[in-house]
Amino acid sequence: MTTGTTDLEFDRGIAVVPRDDPTEYDAQLDEGWRIGAGINGGLLLATLGNAMRHTFPAPHRDPFSISAYYLSASRPGPATVRTHVLRTGRATTTGQAALSQPEAGGEVERIRAIAAFGGLAALPDDVRTTAVPPDLPPPERCVSTADAPPAFLEQAELLRRLDLRLDPSCVGWAVGEPSGRGEIRGWLRMADGREPDPLLLLLAVDSLPPVSFDLGLLGWTPTLELTAHVRAAPAPGWLLVRHATRNLAGGLLEEDAEVWDSAGRLVAQSRQLALVPRSRP
Amino acid sequence: MTTGTTDLEFDRGIAVVPRDDPTEYDAQLDEGWRIGAGINGGLLLATLGNAMRHTFPAPHRDPFSISAYYLSASRPGPATVRTHVLRTGRATTTGQAALSQPEAGGEVERIRAIAAFGGLAALPDDVRTTAVPPDLPPPERCVSTADAPPAFLEQAELLRRLDLRLDPSCVGWAVGEPSGRGEIRGWLRMADGREPDPLLLLLAVDSLPPVSFDLGLLGWTPTLELTAHVRAAPAPGWLLVRHATRNLAGGLLEEDAEVWDSAGRLVAQSRQLALVPRSRP
Repeated sequence: MTTGTTDLEFDRGIAVVPRDDPTEYDAQLDEGWRIGAGINGGLLLATLGNAMRHTFPAPHRDPFSISAYYLSASRPGPATVRTHVLRTGRATTTGQAALSQPEAGGEVERIRAIAAFGGLAALPDDVRTTAVPPDLPPPERCVSTADAPPAFLEQAELLRRLDLRLDPSCVGWAVGEPSGRGEIRGWLRMADGREPDPLLLLLAVDSLPPVSFDLGLLGWTPTLELTAHVRAAPAPGWLLVRHATRNLAGGLLEEDAEVWDSAGRLVAQSRQLALVPRSRP
Repeated sequence: MTTGTTDLEFDRGIAVVPRDDPTEYDAQLDEGWRIGAGINGGLLLATLGNAMRHTFPAPHRDPFSISAYYLSASRPGPATVRTHVLRTGRATTTGQAALSQPEAGGEVERIRAIAAFGGLAALPDDVRTTAVPPDLPPPERCVSTADAPPAFLEQAELLRRLDLRLDPSCVGWAVGEPSGRGEIRGWLRMADGREPDPLLLLLAVDSLPPVSFDLGLLGWTPTLELTAHVRAAPAPGWLLVRHATRNLAGGLLEEDAEVWDSAGRLVAQSRQLALVPRSRP
């Protein structure tokens, strides 16, 4: 039995197959989610979330909060996900998950997460969000990453899975003119039309180019830690994603993401701590 | 041997005594760090950080990032901390820690954390922080929590350990006039003169009154998850702490904290997801 698989790319990407021990799952990290030499951190987060979703008791099937620590770079190929429930309360279940891959005759852990899952549908309706959604041109007037140079897309297979439209004011880095603001905004949906849900938001928070590009720091920004809060099930349609950093120092940068749905609701927030790329402006 | 203990209150509060198994420590949660019926979440975070600091290999002794999930309310009394190293790399060691307390003949886990530790002193000197420190009156023109009504202080023994001076524009809630902005700012130092260090920053990020007070929501805000990034060793003197929320919805609120040191550097950032108090304005 493959759990949660449809013929849509994201569902295939995060699919987990339970073993005899129902806390252990087989996963297959597909080349199609590669970014640089590794697998996109958001896809890994969603894979761990999917395994926890299937392990934790109903109705605690939505990630309220998930914190992941990236231990080593994941590669395309087979992986094992192990889950562990720490506590089930009335409103939430807290547990862990870890993803490992075979290497050099043994097994190496790639990513470990703790998370609190609950039922988003059961939450009360109060919304007192004071954050304001970013103001950017409609998708048809934004810059599609599908138009990026082929050599760039080859480095980021991930982008072929996404329909990502970046605000023209945030893409100067692509022509050597970063804005210096430390912000990247864009519209996101899946290229194959798969509608957003709570697990897809775990990909969305790590789907834009690194915000350091907008500071003129091109190169890979390996994530040490990423925590995402999912605050509501997203409405169908485009997601609006904003990445920003306010604290680049000591070779590390904080990167905050907000994800707004088509109904104008702030459905996810995340923050990560990542390594600053070595290349300097 | 008691590890890391001085005669200063914070050091006594977070002290851990290794057992024969060097990954296990005895701790004593002191009444003096109580807030409501439980122990302050920041003090617990610093206690886990202290145990990891003593378990992880040198020079990885400073918390770069720590993510804690609060499983049940901690009570004054004895506790056990267990640590576990997941991976040691060149720049960081990633590991876990959990704190448990005896209950009903067994043991109940209170809090579990994953963290990446490294050496703050070894980080490069680049600082490109665009965040701006909050502008508030000097400590002597702020409102000292020592002047709070005795009945309030009895509910928050923690406040006797702190010299906390709140911005007068953020304390209207104390007289039934919350600003509604969802922000609380203040100066913080330890009442006994203990200077800040990276572990003290883990207390600082959770030391102000809940930001929900400023929205007129008085009452306890139990933390589900708190992640803190420590970005530099703080200079001696006052810390400037700002708590804010931008997303209160579905019975949960996100609360962000920034901690600035006396040299004007953003030394720590945190975000937590907490339950909205039941009382409404």
